[in-house]
Amino acid sequence: MSTAFAEKCRKVVCIGRNYFDHVLELNNAKPTSPFFFLKPPSSILLPGQGPILAPTGVKCHYEVELALVFDKTVRDYDYRGKDEKTALNEVIDQISGYTVAIDMTGRNVQDEIKKKGLPWTTAKGFDTFLPVSNFIPKSAIPDPSDVTLFLTVNKQTPYNQHDSTNLMMFKIPELVSAISSVMTIQPGDIILTGTPKGVGSVVPGDHIDAGLEVDGKVLEDSKISVDVAEKGGIYAFGK
Amino acid sequence: MSTAFAEKCRKVVCIGRNYFDHVLELNNAKPTSPFFFLKPPSSILLPGQGPILAPTGVKCHYEVELALVFDKTVRDYDYRGKDEKTALNEVIDQISGYTVAIDMTGRNVQDEIKKKGLPWTTAKGFDTFLPVSNFIPKSAIPDPSDVTLFLTVNKQTPYNQHDSTNLMMFKIPELVSAISSVMTIQPGDIILTGTPKGVGSVVPGDHIDAGLEVDGKVLEDSKISVDVAEKGGIYAFGK
Ligand SMILES: [Mg+2]
Ligand SMILES: [Mg+2]
Ligand SMILES: [Mg+2]
Repeated sequence: MSTAFAEKCRKVVCIGRNYFDHVLELNNAKPTSPFFFLKPPSSILLPGQGPILAPTGVKCHYEVELALVFDKTVRDYDYRGKDEKTALNEVIDQISGYTVAIDMTGRNVQDEIKKKGLPWTTAKGFDTFLPVSNFIPKSAIPDPSDVTLFLTVNKQTPYNQHDSTNLMMFKIPELVSAISSVMTIQPGDIILTGTPKGVGSVVPGDHIDAGLEVDGKVLEDSKISVDVAEKGGIYAFGK
Repeated sequence: MSTAFAEKCRKVVCIGRNYFDHVLELNNAKPTSPFFFLKPPSSILLPGQGPILAPTGVKCHYEVELALVFDKTVRDYDYRGKDEKTALNEVIDQISGYTVAIDMTGRNVQDEIKKKGLPWTTAKGFDTFLPVSNFIPKSAIPDPSDVTLFLTVNKQTPYNQHDSTNLMMFKIPELVSAISSVMTIQPGDIILTGTPKGVGSVVPGDHIDAGLEVDGKVLEDSKISVDVAEKGGIYAFGK
């Protein structure tokens, strides 16, 4: 079960710009409502399957995120008019658990795409661009709205990313509401909830460690440890 | 088997702007290489499952397309340096067959998204926004690069869309090459190859008929016959 969750996944929905300091560091506009994009299941990289493959000419950015793994069908979930705790408990009833995910992003590919008004798919969808941890059972995370995500490149301290999920601008119930008002969430689907500040580049030869802390203690099942290598193949950005 | 193909699908990859007259009708820039986006499998609408659901405030455009259904794993497929017929036969070896698909698009949602440089996901990913026909076995289509797609709203003639796939700017092998150089195509994946000219709006109460003709004869398994109705629910564009 520790990685079987990924095989049942038919869509991966990712929230963009959900932490204010991350919006600032990339000079993006602050969203007034949640927006999201898809990564293909083929981009999932399970623990031990590494390395992350950097395509030729692509500036590869890491974004560590808390991800929800659903086991219920969710359509038109409405969080409005409910207190935060009630709504969060309703979402927790819809999921089987969590995983830590790194939303790898071809930042220069994305910059060009955004300028042209084209889909984000290529920037976000390369093979290996979605390293995940083992499955984290619900019981291991008493409150997903207050766990600490971390990511460090080449074991550097202080960590490159290290922030609590309590900094999300749009809280988990609002994310599920926004997504499920457009597309039905199906059992096995995975939702990434956005990345805190501190994103940056990695290059072949680098190593990434990531995971999450509950009350200051790293959860063993949340750990990601993955190398970065060259992809090769026929894709080359800007060619 | 006639609709089982859709249950095995883990990603739907769609080519944008692949017919010149369609690029012109939407005042878009002509692409210099193929680009693509994802629709979630949850948007698939099987024959008989209708209607297409129009979300509140969304201008719903139809786009009829030939789709390839893969049954092999394809990574870094290289069409270059091969003659067209050889390359096409290599792709035909990778697929189990075809389906006709309607890439429903929230055009006003997409227009706003493009202006802001945001992902196309919402505009393309609503539930029911991917009506498909039955599965079409390979043997029914001797040459996928020369079949005629058609779509008509409320049985109007001449048809709203009615063009041969020989008008594709980027041919099928180049599409498979472009996609598989970014993301591995997995068994069950579906690729939509772009829409010819004639796209337009439908509203609740309308009816769509679509399909494809081989040598002037409509293939029975290619037929789509679907109503359009109001979605309801909590999504409303511009709200
Ligand atoms: Mg997908
Ligand atoms: Mg992200
Ligand atoms: Mg299309």
